[in-house]
Amino acid sequence: MKLTKLLPLAAAVALVPALGLAQEAEAVEEAAGLTVEMLNTEMVFIFNSLLFLIGGILVFWMAAGFAMLEAGFVRSKNTTMQLTKNVGLFSLAAFFYYLIGFNLMYPGDGWIIDGWLGAFGPAVLEAVGVGMDEADDIEYASVGSDFFFQLMFCATTASIVSGALAERIKLNAFLVFVVVLTALIYPIQASWSWGEGWLDAMGFSDFAGSTIVHSVGGWAALTGAIILGARKGKYGPDGKVNPIPGSNLALATLGMFILWMGWFGFNGGSELAMGSVDAVANVSRIFANTNAAAAGGAIAALLLTQILFKKADLTLMLNGALAGLVAITAEPLEPGLGLATIIGAIGGVIVVFTVPLLDKLKIDDVVGAIPVHLFAGIWGTLAVVLSNGDANIGTQVVGIVAIGAFAIVTSAIVWAIIKGVMGIRVSEEAEINGLDKSELGMEAYPDFAKG
Amino acid sequence: MKLTKLLPLAAAVALVPALGLAQEAEAVEEAAGLTVEMLNTEMVFIFNSLLFLIGGILVFWMAAGFAMLEAGFVRSKNTTMQLTKNVGLFSLAAFFYYLIGFNLMYPGDGWIIDGWLGAFGPAVLEAVGVGMDEADDIEYASVGSDFFFQLMFCATTASIVSGALAERIKLNAFLVFVVVLTALIYPIQASWSWGEGWLDAMGFSDFAGSTIVHSVGGWAALTGAIILGARKGKYGPDGKVNPIPGSNLALATLGMFILWMGWFGFNGGSELAMGSVDAVANVSRIFANTNAAAAGGAIAALLLTQILFKKADLTLMLNGALAGLVAITAEPLEPGLGLATIIGAIGGVIVVFTVPLLDKLKIDDVVGAIPVHLFAGIWGTLAVVLSNGDANIGTQVVGIVAIGAFAIVTSAIVWAIIKGVMGIRVSEEAEINGLDKSELGMEAYPDFAKG
Amino acid sequence: MKLTKLLPLAAAVALVPALGLAQEAEAVEEAAGLTVEMLNTEMVFIFNSLLFLIGGILVFWMAAGFAMLEAGFVRSKNTTMQLTKNVGLFSLAAFFYYLIGFNLMYPGDGWIIDGWLGAFGPAVLEAVGVGMDEADDIEYASVGSDFFFQLMFCATTASIVSGALAERIKLNAFLVFVVVLTALIYPIQASWSWGEGWLDAMGFSDFAGSTIVHSVGGWAALTGAIILGARKGKYGPDGKVNPIPGSNLALATLGMFILWMGWFGFNGGSELAMGSVDAVANVSRIFANTNAAAAGGAIAALLLTQILFKKADLTLMLNGALAGLVAITAEPLEPGLGLATIIGAIGGVIVVFTVPLLDKLKIDDVVGAIPVHLFAGIWGTLAVVLSNGDANIGTQVVGIVAIGAFAIVTSAIVWAIIKGVMGIRVSEEAEINGLDKSELGMEAYPDFAKG
Repeated sequence: MKLTKLLPLAAAVALVPALGLAQEAEAVEEAAGLTVEMLNTEMVFIFNSLLFLIGGILVFWMAAGFAMLEAGFVRSKNTTMQLTKNVGLFSLAAFFYYLIGFNLMYPGDGWIIDGWLGAFGPAVLEAVGVGMDEADDIEYASVGSDFFFQLMFCATTASIVSGALAERIKLNAFLVFVVVLTALIYPIQASWSWGEGWLDAMGFSDFAGSTIVHSVGGWAALTGAIILGARKGKYGPDGKVNPIPGSNLALATLGMFILWMGWFGFNGGSELAMGSVDAVANVSRIFANTNAAAAGGAIAALLLTQILFKKADLTLMLNGALAGLVAITAEPLEPGLGLATIIGAIGGVIVVFTVPLLDKLKIDDVVGAIPVHLFAGIWGTLAVVLSNGDANIGTQVVGIVAIGAFAIVTSAIVWAIIKGVMGIRVSEEAEINGLDKSELGMEAYPDFAKG
Repeated sequence: MKLTKLLPLAAAVALVPALGLAQEAEAVEEAAGLTVEMLNTEMVFIFNSLLFLIGGILVFWMAAGFAMLEAGFVRSKNTTMQLTKNVGLFSLAAFFYYLIGFNLMYPGDGWIIDGWLGAFGPAVLEAVGVGMDEADDIEYASVGSDFFFQLMFCATTASIVSGALAERIKLNAFLVFVVVLTALIYPIQASWSWGEGWLDAMGFSDFAGSTIVHSVGGWAALTGAIILGARKGKYGPDGKVNPIPGSNLALATLGMFILWMGWFGFNGGSELAMGSVDAVANVSRIFANTNAAAAGGAIAALLLTQILFKKADLTLMLNGALAGLVAITAEPLEPGLGLATIIGAIGGVIVVFTVPLLDKLKIDDVVGAIPVHLFAGIWGTLAVVLSNGDANIGTQVVGIVAIGAFAIVTSAIVWAIIKGVMGIRVSEEAEINGLDKSELGMEAYPDFAKG
Repeated sequence: MKLTKLLPLAAAVALVPALGLAQEAEAVEEAAGLTVEMLNTEMVFIFNSLLFLIGGILVFWMAAGFAMLEAGFVRSKNTTMQLTKNVGLFSLAAFFYYLIGFNLMYPGDGWIIDGWLGAFGPAVLEAVGVGMDEADDIEYASVGSDFFFQLMFCATTASIVSGALAERIKLNAFLVFVVVLTALIYPIQASWSWGEGWLDAMGFSDFAGSTIVHSVGGWAALTGAIILGARKGKYGPDGKVNPIPGSNLALATLGMFILWMGWFGFNGGSELAMGSVDAVANVSRIFANTNAAAAGGAIAALLLTQILFKKADLTLMLNGALAGLVAITAEPLEPGLGLATIIGAIGGVIVVFTVPLLDKLKIDDVVGAIPVHLFAGIWGTLAVVLSNGDANIGTQVVGIVAIGAFAIVTSAIVWAIIKGVMGIRVSEEAEINGLDKSELGMEAYPDFAKG
């Protein structure tokens, strides 16, 4: 135990009887070194940064979850391609979010168009060994941790797109879209809410991004799926829908579990604070609610598929759990455990009914990304008003529509340009032979005979 | 808030004789805003809650570990079913532990039968934004984090059962059992020790649940396996045991690694505190010991299978590591690294010898759950006395027997009712064709030809 | 900063002028119980220990990453063997690092040969419930957390070796090497830098072990690959290189994602501190840079393989990301995000060019471990001077050469002894039939027909 703090106190007080109380105390404090308030400030900064670091790792892990889910849901002849897309999209998202996205999303006082369009320029971290006085925002968290956490959300948006468009989109067409999505589309609309832009000013409430992340990914997937068209043989000439089963449900289930796990970071980290009793208690509520919603979504799909089809359907259970997670993402804090379960369960119900609906519309979504991320995302964003008294259904609708319109228009333009300039779809022959052999010359499971 | 720090202040101020001591101290304190004691209280609360959140994520992750382990150990024709069971069981455990289990397990002052049967009712979290004064237990952790952590233990108990009964039990029969197990059987017996019930009062010592979690799951699996009977063809008419190899050892190994990883949360989180030097040092010991025991179990199986069978046996190594983990779970804190290694190694030895033993008894445990969780769990509960001076071998035996008897009786009754009411076993034809095709209409690996 | 707490102190002390200054302060402090400095000390200790625990779990998880990567890169007939090796190597590393390695690596004041050779003896943890006064190093972290974290680095070194030598080395020959590597070779050379030995005194700078971990594993793999020889049929008599594709690229990709995830703990934990603003901000920088470098490596491989081969190559992208991670490991703190990306990208480029180079030299590295861990490790160790002003290129070269020479010589001797005493390579017949059937009698995927 050191005396450094006490000595100056004693010295100061003993030596300055002439001074008035306030001055005296100030002098004491300056000399005193570490105070309890300083320690508290430091503690809050560390805990918040740690929340972002742990949360960021967990959301990073979701990239692996999407990769496994999608690799399991595509046919084995397209698995290497789906893996390549997932590794590529995450890497490009990381690079372009650093290069442009982060500053576009969080312009601070540097908006180009106030509340609508942020600033361009690469992300810059705090200096090495930054102290309390030099930290960018000592009452929040380290810039590096914040950047790390936010980057992962941007990458998640891109991950959502890849599954829907699997088994027929060209690798580079997809990756070019990812660049635009992660550098521009995602950060710009995210700045409207999370960068303190116009939607935030209106009071739009989307805690961890049912709309801002999941629906945006879903809209991009939907426009892409329409422009790209369905896989060969998916829809018969007589309107018949041919199921194309995924090649590896163990992998897909692993992917679902990884996503469920990562979602604790996704939603919990979005509390943005952990350094006080109320903050950590809130993070705890969020964890419990997130888990409840996922369970609700899976149970709803388990029961509903048995009722409707007389058989439990694993793929709908996986997507049901994910839809529950997406649904609770807009407000994982305020509901009780019961309401969280119900919000998630309705997400699961939505999936069971909208997967066939898309097929009726001949929109070919290979992994069910549009029902899970778009439809359940809209539901979750509306459901905020069930528990959050500050949210307003009109404003929620404005947010959903505005972000949706922006995502649809920009995505459609980009997909159309890509289609025109470089082509978007592999040849019919390549699609039949599988993208792995024809486009990459590398099979995912070369040792195994085809069934 | 304690007065220890304020006393000298008070003493000093006592020179102002006009004021009474207590009043004075209180006045000082109220004016003081943030004190070092308050900050300490807050810090302890945050760290403890954080331990539960991190621990809870890790134990959640074990659900994925069990799913992968079991999906890898069953034949490919039953893989979708095994995955379905694992997703379903976790979701149902989450729901029913919320609805009933949590309050049954932690009745506080609200026992129905004092020390034996808790209270019924759903779990309720602390309010949003709860402050220091309103927190349920400011000297412990947030209710949400505690609930989240404890829920995962309940789910683990259910995960243990699914593997043993694989490849022949009906989906809904299994799931109904899970509901009873997670809503009633697990929480009631867990309340005896961890809810401050009669076994706790006796001094039964089971740190993270070798008996309370693992053996209970093991007993439920054992009674189920006996009532259910062995898989077709497993035991020949002449007493011959036909090995039925697992379809995907890569997946099974992944599952084992996931479980090993999750166990750091399982055992480490069970320290229930991290907000002081001694608490975090204890958590650290637990991590190191848990790892040592797992390594010990794997090494024992590696050496022993080479000695006995002239060949290393991967599946026994995986189960050996898990048995080491189960064995150290009852007391991961007190042993040194050497003793922890030995306790784990003996767990591994138990597995190597008892897997064939079960086969001799014609009890068909598909994944080895009974040797790993029940037999090694008993061993670990007894081994507590090797390092924990407060533990008593007699009391340990009482705990093992009492919990075992309760688990056997309740499980047997529930299994029997399920068998009578809805049937427990799929048809012989379904079993031969595989549960995936016959019960679910969905194969796990449809692209791959059967070998 | 508030004055509330200081006022009463000041008031109190002002009233006792009769006491000497120092005595007075000391008396106050002794009576005071918890002071802000004590709380700070405690907080730092907890945060640092927590960093090691979280970091340790993440680096443990890398063992699973290596297992999956390698199981995916070998042929299905050798998958069980590769899994067995990975479970075995980690377990043996855990045991022998406890038994000898930890003390050899961190001798403190107990060197046998000062700065060159540490002390022999098993690791001993702090006592249960150790308080502030008894903690081994109260200004650092708990011994258990430190041991846990460091153990995982030792195991990583062994994991690197297993992939390169796959599909032909005998199980026990490999495991005996692992024992020597983890008990002696790794800890001794690591003590030179991290145990405050002679390389540390020289100023050699290798933050998280591009050389100390990755190159050492790489050198051991290289000497092993040379002594062992190439797989049957890999190199034709006419100098033709026959590609032997991996059997499960989904698994390999999962392994890569696991490794990427684990690397946040590997590099971030190597900051060795998290309990202050600057420390946690540094950890945050490291996370962000580590991610940037991995992305850079993957993007470089994605672009370069398309340019060189007209086709994206997933396996080179996986190894490119890993090479990016290895390259940033020697200095993940000082670079900005741009430089980190470039350092990682060059790692990716190195892999694309050196994988074929090894084939030209007829050195058969099954998974690309030598390009990734050795070549990118050397690059990363040199690249330290690009951002770290305290590093010196000459010293870096000395470190690389000294550690390399030690690793080569000791590895070669051990491999040679193993070859002479017990034989190192399976029979030609076993190799052709696959190690799973011939050596272990257990196939990894028995249900699936061979392609």
